[in-house]
This record gives sequence, C-alpha cells and structure tokens, in this order.
Amino acid sequence: MPANQQILLDNRPAGEAVASNFKLVTSDTPELQDGEVLVRHHFLSLDPYMRGRMNDAKSYTAPQPLGQVMGGGTVGEVVQSRSPKFQPGDQVAGMGGWQQYSVVKADQPGALRKVDTSQVPLSHYLGAVGMPGVTAWYGLVKIIQPQAGETLVVSAATGAVGSAFAALAKARGCRVVGIAGGPEKCGYAVAELGFDACIDYKQHNNAASLSKALKAACPDGIDGYFENVGGMVLDAVLLRMNAFGRIAVCGMIAGYDGQPLPLAHPALILTNRLKVQGFIVSEHMDVWPEALAELGMLVGTGKLRPRESVAQGLEAAPEAFLGLLKGKNFGKQLVKLI
Amino acid sequence: MPANQQILLDNRPAGEAVASNFKLVTSDTPELQDGEVLVRHHFLSLDPYMRGRMNDAKSYTAPQPLGQVMGGGTVGEVVQSRSPKFQPGDQVAGMGGWQQYSVVKADQPGALRKVDTSQVPLSHYLGAVGMPGVTAWYGLVKIIQPQAGETLVVSAATGAVGSAFAALAKARGCRVVGIAGGPEKCGYAVAELGFDACIDYKQHNNAASLSKALKAACPDGIDGYFENVGGMVLDAVLLRMNAFGRIAVCGMIAGYDGQPLPLAHPALILTNRLKVQGFIVSEHMDVWPEALAELGMLVGTGKLRPRESVAQGLEAAPEAFLGLLKGKNFGKQLVKLI
Repeated sequence: MPANQQILLDNRPAGEAVASNFKLVTSDTPELQDGEVLVRHHFLSLDPYMRGRMNDAKSYTAPQPLGQVMGGGTVGEVVQSRSPKFQPGDQVAGMGGWQQYSVVKADQPGALRKVDTSQVPLSHYLGAVGMPGVTAWYGLVKIIQPQAGETLVVSAATGAVGSAFAALAKARGCRVVGIAGGPEKCGYAVAELGFDACIDYKQHNNAASLSKALKAACPDGIDGYFENVGGMVLDAVLLRMNAFGRIAVCGMIAGYDGQPLPLAHPALILTNRLKVQGFIVSEHMDVWPEALAELGMLVGTGKLRPRESVAQGLEAAPEAFLGLLKGKNFGKQLVKLI
Repeated sequence: MPANQQILLDNRPAGEAVASNFKLVTSDTPELQDGEVLVRHHFLSLDPYMRGRMNDAKSYTAPQPLGQVMGGGTVGEVVQSRSPKFQPGDQVAGMGGWQQYSVVKADQPGALRKVDTSQVPLSHYLGAVGMPGVTAWYGLVKIIQPQAGETLVVSAATGAVGSAFAALAKARGCRVVGIAGGPEKCGYAVAELGFDACIDYKQHNNAASLSKALKAACPDGIDGYFENVGGMVLDAVLLRMNAFGRIAVCGMIAGYDGQPLPLAHPALILTNRLKVQGFIVSEHMDVWPEALAELGMLVGTGKLRPRESVAQGLEAAPEAFLGLLKGKNFGKQLVKLI
C-alpha cells in the first residue's frame, strides 16, 4: 500500500487562522477490508466552511477534531477495490480530506459517487458541478425564488459559488450584480462570468459608500441577495433591498476569525418586509440531483465556465487555504495532488 | 353638525417623541355628501407603528403628514348616513384617526366595516379581534408555522399582540414563553394570559443575562420567536434559537426614536439556519377573515381575555401614546372618546 501524506489539525486558531495550526505527516495506508475502496485523490477542495470547523464552537457542523486529518471534498480515481460497486479506474468524488489517499467504505450512503468526465472536467465536481454549485442553486432557487427581471446581488462573485450563481440567475432572466475584491476580479466577472455589473468593495471603506455604488449598479433596487461574506457588505446591501426582498445567508466569512460582526440596521428587515434565511446545502440532499443536472448542463454548453485557482501539492494546502480566507484566490480554490 | 376635537401632528420628533409634537384643535364637521357616513368614535387605538409614521423617513407606510389629523384605528357608531350600506346605530370599525368624529366614504374598500358586539365588546375590535390580533395570527401561522410541542417566545407579552399570540399558540399545543417589563406584567401573563412562563427583561441589563433566563425558561431551546421590540431582547433570543427556528419580525419599538439598534450576532442566522422575516399585517388582507374568525372564537369562549389600558378623552391621547412607547400601558392601549 502507498505511503499517504496527510494534513492534520494540530491546534485551534486564536483569532486568525495560521499555517502552524496545521501539521503535515506521512502515514501508512491500511490494507483494504471487504467492501472498502482505495481512492487516489487528484484534487482537494478548499472551502470557507472549513474555517468554521477549526473553532471549538457550537456551529452547524461538529468541530474538526484535533490530531485528525482535515475534512474536505476530493475527486480522484479508484486504485484498488474490494467492493463490487467500484472498479480500479473509476473516477469518483467524495469527502476524502486533506490527504493523498483515502480508504472508503463503499456502502456508506453518499461516501463516494462515480462522476462522468466526458463533458465536465474532473475538478469541476468540486466546484460548479459540486457542493459550491449546488449551494448557489439552493440559495437562488429555494430561498431567493427569483422572478425574471428582478435584480440579484452576490458577494464573493468570482468564487465557486458566485460564478455558478451568476449563470443560474442569468438563465432565469435576472439582472445579476457581483461584489468582489479588486478590478481584475470585477472585470473578469463582467467579461467572462456573465455579470451585468460588478462592484469592487475594496474601493469603499464604509457601508454608506458601498451602498451608493450599489445604488448606481442596481437602479431598480435589489430583490435578492446571496450572502457569502457578512459585515460591511451585508450592511450596504440591506440599505438597497426592495420591499419583499429575499436574502439567502450562505456564509459570513468576514466573521470567521471570531471578531464581532454586528448588523447595523436590523430594523430594515421589518421596514422592507425582508426574508433573511440561513441554510447549509448538505441538509438538502434531495435537491442535489436536480441542481447538478442543471449545473452540468450549464458547464457542458459553455454557459458556466468556472475559473480555478490551483495550488500544487498537499504541502501547499495550508497557505492556499489561508489565502482563500483573505480572498486571494481567483475562482474555485483547489489543490492538485498528483 | 357636531364640533370635532382633533389631534394633529404639529412637528416631527427630534429623537424621542414628546407631547409638544401634537396639537389639539377643534374643527367643524363638514356636511355629508352622497355616499358618506358620519361616525362618532367610541374608542381610539394607540399602536407602536404610529411612532414610525411620525418620522419623515422611508418606511413601510408613508409618513404622517404634518398639520393633519393623526391616523389611527377607531370603533364607534354611525350617527348619520347618506349611504344605503350603513344606518344610524350601526357599530363600526375603521381608521378614523385621533378625533371624535370622522366622515367616511362608505364605498371605499376597507374604510368601514360593521362589527357584531353580541359576543365581543366593541373595544376588542381594536385589539384582540382587530389589527393587533391578526398581526399575532399572521406571524404565528404564516411565518413561524408552529408544530405542537415547540417552544415559542413573544416580546411585549402582555400587549395586544402578545396576549393574542399566547392564546393562538396554546391552541396549537405549543409551549409559550413571554418577555415583559416588570413582575406585575409577568405574573399576569402566566396567571391570566396562558403563558407557561414569563421573563421580566427589566431584571437583566445585558443580552447574556437575559439569554440565561431564557435558557431556564426554554430548556428545549426556542423554535419560534415573535419580535415586537428589537435590541437587547432580540440579541438574547437569537442566542437560544434552535436550528431551523423562525423569527417573525413585527416591530422594533426599541429603535423607533432613531438611535442605532444593531444586531450583535447575525452569523447565528447562518449557523442555526434561521428564517427571519418581517411583515406588515395590512399587506395580507386575505388572511383577515380566517384570523378574525379564530380570534373572535377565542374571545367568545373565554380563552383569550385581553386586558385594556383606557385613557379618558381625546386630550389624553398624546400622553397615553408616549407611555405606550415606554411600556407603561398594561394590555391594549385605548382612548375612550365618549
């Protein structure tokens, strides 16, 4: 069996996460038992939710245990199998974690699924045609419930979720405005991702200023907002929401380090009769087939062309992850493991 | 035609509302035109939403115009009619405003409706079997959507909305916990209004302390919350909400004077996958018949015995209203005009 590089959570962040929270080790891969499959990971997904799990706090997922392999989505290839369900050579997606190989019980529901790479590149099953894509789909379709002609806004616009959101929203006849950091990302959002406009939040140092820019980009107000960041951006968007607007709360990356992140004007929820709803896509597995079908079609037909930031080698994962938390990635953040 | 005492909005509050914002005048009542009805008001309703209308700010209702009669719900008796729809002696509810008489166009939809006082006292059509009751019903039934056995919390528990909320929630098999100001109100909530427990927020000077009291009163957490006040109370409740909890935002009286009223931990909306939704009952006229039927039944069968605070005479309205904003009323605040 191959040696297996792994990254463990060694200690929890005190405030900001740092590279020394992680530890790289090499372990032996155990022999397969009946029903098990050995997967060699080609790509590891890095996602903002992982930061929440590094804290030892009540949240929607259990904390990442100390001394164990960091959890995370992976795509790869079956290299050995003692299950009739999988053959060596099968391309698969699963939750293999921050390591080169994983041993998976093939019968465990949802543990491993075969993917078709004839139309969709393998790595996209970690992004546009995976959890981030379904996240965008759920927030848009089930919470925002858009009507054609409405104006929708998404923060972290050029990320895996934001880019899928844009394609899904345009397919429904909406105006879609992004918020992203820096002119390069904003230009890309409009030129390549189909956004009607994109606002560079780094040009604004308070919510009032950002809100003014939103007013210019959304002359008819905002009907739906997909929240990935929280903080100043949420305050600014709230000031521009139309009556009966819907806000899908998917992430509040701005507050993951534990600093206070108050909402300045919650009374706007009342005066504008807003619906603000948090959700976690893994609790809505029933919608995944429908969502993945649409997302696969959008990728297959070129209407969703997601960008990827690829770090090379498992040892690069911690720095790539810390960069993601600061918005340094451009598109879906992956680690290539082969 | 009778002389008509009226209270006008004379000037807008700078911060806290004060008695000198209002002006008492006496005017002549115009002769009726065809299709018009003259109503003598028996009771005027005082409600927190009126404070919002005193500001010249974008809100869900147009600002109260300066120099005009303050708007407000009234019940009374038709004294003259030039409409075939109403006869002198009819008991009616409408939006007559802060004055002794109003002239109403009988054909205007929703302007005036006859009420049956055989089972329900006339004044209750301004409270439990009127707008406040329907407000409680809408937030409970349409937003919180409770299941039997769930724990629900309401602030301003002994007010017109809170007391109706308790009766409606108990009828659905829920545990219902109130938040009110002072031991007298809290005792009354449990002894007379059917609350399972009631917390005196005046015993707590920060959200953490109030949250601890909520934990004791709600050992299984909070599944639904009906928000009337905002501020510290909302912060405290948010800390105790269960996953998939629902919050109906009906009022944020704590912020009506314009002071900042931030929400401390909006990320809880995400981590607990909450739905937070604002609403205004006048935008949901379709539910009024169903809601009023249930509320009338609860009052008629003694399951909802709403308490009233009655000020005497129109000239007492401003002070009674300012007291309402400070929680000095005990039950539905009315002004008796005859």
